[in-house]
Amino acid sequence: MEAIDLRAARTALRENAPLVHCLTNTVVQTFTANALLAVGAAPAMVDAPQEAGDFAAVASALLINVGTVHERTAEAMRLAARSAGAAGTPWVLDPVAVGGLAYRTALAGELLELSPAVVRGNASEVMALAGAGAGGRGVDSTAGADDAVTAARELAARTGGVIAVSGEVDLLTDGARTVRVGGGSPLLTRTTGAGCALGALVAAYVAAVGDPLTGAVAAHAHVAVAAERAARTAAGPGTFAPAWLDALDAVGPDDLATADVRAG
Amino acid sequence: MEAIDLRAARTALRENAPLVHCLTNTVVQTFTANALLAVGAAPAMVDAPQEAGDFAAVASALLINVGTVHERTAEAMRLAARSAGAAGTPWVLDPVAVGGLAYRTALAGELLELSPAVVRGNASEVMALAGAGAGGRGVDSTAGADDAVTAARELAARTGGVIAVSGEVDLLTDGARTVRVGGGSPLLTRTTGAGCALGALVAAYVAAVGDPLTGAVAAHAHVAVAAERAARTAAGPGTFAPAWLDALDAVGPDDLATADVRAG
Amino acid sequence: MEAIDLRAARTALRENAPLVHCLTNTVVQTFTANALLAVGAAPAMVDAPQEAGDFAAVASALLINVGTVHERTAEAMRLAARSAGAAGTPWVLDPVAVGGLAYRTALAGELLELSPAVVRGNASEVMALAGAGAGGRGVDSTAGADDAVTAARELAARTGGVIAVSGEVDLLTDGARTVRVGGGSPLLTRTTGAGCALGALVAAYVAAVGDPLTGAVAAHAHVAVAAERAARTAAGPGTFAPAWLDALDAVGPDDLATADVRAG
Repeated sequence: MEAIDLRAARTALRENAPLVHCLTNTVVQTFTANALLAVGAAPAMVDAPQEAGDFAAVASALLINVGTVHERTAEAMRLAARSAGAAGTPWVLDPVAVGGLAYRTALAGELLELSPAVVRGNASEVMALAGAGAGGRGVDSTAGADDAVTAARELAARTGGVIAVSGEVDLLTDGARTVRVGGGSPLLTRTTGAGCALGALVAAYVAAVGDPLTGAVAAHAHVAVAAERAARTAAGPGTFAPAWLDALDAVGPDDLATADVRAG
Repeated sequence: MEAIDLRAARTALRENAPLVHCLTNTVVQTFTANALLAVGAAPAMVDAPQEAGDFAAVASALLINVGTVHERTAEAMRLAARSAGAAGTPWVLDPVAVGGLAYRTALAGELLELSPAVVRGNASEVMALAGAGAGGRGVDSTAGADDAVTAARELAARTGGVIAVSGEVDLLTDGARTVRVGGGSPLLTRTTGAGCALGALVAAYVAAVGDPLTGAVAAHAHVAVAAERAARTAAGPGTFAPAWLDALDAVGPDDLATADVRAG
Repeated sequence: MEAIDLRAARTALRENAPLVHCLTNTVVQTFTANALLAVGAAPAMVDAPQEAGDFAAVASALLINVGTVHERTAEAMRLAARSAGAAGTPWVLDPVAVGGLAYRTALAGELLELSPAVVRGNASEVMALAGAGAGGRGVDSTAGADDAVTAARELAARTGGVIAVSGEVDLLTDGARTVRVGGGSPLLTRTTGAGCALGALVAAYVAAVGDPLTGAVAAHAHVAVAAERAARTAAGPGTFAPAWLDALDAVGPDDLATADVRAG
């Protein structure tokens, strides 16, 4: 496997400052926008059906996260994903709580047909998307990332994109290549929206570097390295969040290159 | 009156890690989710009418807060409250700004018929719900908790649940027993969503301990003790919020037992 | 030009504690509410069409920000702006990303006819509103405040209100008088919602002091002075946000009087 150049990815993100169109849940919009700003990208949350299609065509990348989806935003998501496809804008699907809830599970299945460059979720969500599991409990996963290896590879083959499974060790695959990203901090799971912000960073990196697997791995590595740094200064889960944003900003090419990234 | 065992309540919350379904206003969703994570509970904000009923049936507890309610979310609230009732899921009503605005006042009256385990509001809101007052000014209360004693007892009798009135000293009653919780910090009133997060913590504690009065008192005590701790380190209202989340996490059974909780 | 009394403006804001009704985008609601609380004002986000008109009539001031506008909230904005006009409630329009997106551009044009006391935006947005430019890239401006001088003066004459153009140096005009506000910190542009919160603070100050130009200048000066103070203690963009809220609270009349405010 060709080595993934994390140093070059971080430099490309800073130089390109991609504009990331986020159709995401209302719980995490603020934190997602601040995470994008921290790494040097630009966020825009345009979620009216009247505008989402037009905006997805001019953005550098698109994130679709179904965490609090309802009829109007589902329509905006369909329009944005189609428009992104037509314009060649890479887009990321975050299937929050898919499997456990019928409405969003059907929507995610529909969106999956529109060729997301990356699907990012936890093991339960990825297994549910692949039709292999019983689904999760909200945004928590009851399965580990490794339980989802087969489902992830199958989904990657089906979509032609990358599947990224978050867990204690993250697992990313494009069907042919598989990469694991370790490190991070348990405090990420105590901060609402950390996983959702990661989805947005994946979109930003893919826009900056082009290759979906490289972009997705760089985003996961960036989140993990910044979390380790923030955990050293935080006094608890409350002060961890701003410290993590500080660290997302501070992590440069050389810092990113220290991430625990391995083939296989 | 039987003494309320705060130590046991804190232990039960940590052990049970209840999943709290929050139908709450968009201003406070993030802070509410982080407060739940900080105390050891799990948040989920599923507010589409297509999903809210199903999710309320599997959650450990439900919070309904009408702060930014509109037609779609009102429908989700009706479905979730009915589903919670049918499933035996305890639920909490936070009647933000009820009294001053006709649309939400009618909705809150309707929801009140669906037997919330706890109603948590300020004195103006509780008096308005009981038909006794002219209502408040947004989320501020123009009356003190003690002004609402009669209204709270009458409401408790009517709903068969607990009424919790927030103020400088909080007043909680199930109609028969009345408990006051002191302490806290004025910085809580300078932090948007602190009261709304308290409503979610009430839901979490009631799920963990079973008895609505014990759960509601424990949540109010937890918020107050954490606020005192955070106020000692915060440099102002901005740094108070993350410090309060840190303190919500740090407060253990022995710390909670130091809270200013008295019968009467 | 009569000098603008910043000391008196800060005192008036603290004494009046205006209630600011915010119809704003979902990304920045929390931060906007906390910024209003920090300076001593009271926020309320009531955005259902059933309630927005009634509430705008009793609020001290109204903010309309079209950042994530859609059909329901657009209707609430129309009702609130009309109600504010009828009740004599001053209101502020923040035309986020107007110019680049047809739906919100048409809405902003419609709202502009309802006589906002202040329009606050970046140069691209103000030029787009005046029909002079090609629009911005989300909330970023590709033009500097000075590029918008002519457009701002023309818009001020057309609306009879104040136009405030944010940039490295802010430019504010009522058509006759022009004021520039310098200072601040680049970290403001790394914090989502700082500009949107400024719009809310303009509404609060105008309610407190009466004169729209004085109020708008005081709000811009307050934001700049607080940002300089916060930048001295923040370790990055994440810790800047709570530090800025602390500083918004701490800046008193004498501090505000040190702001870089000049005629012309």
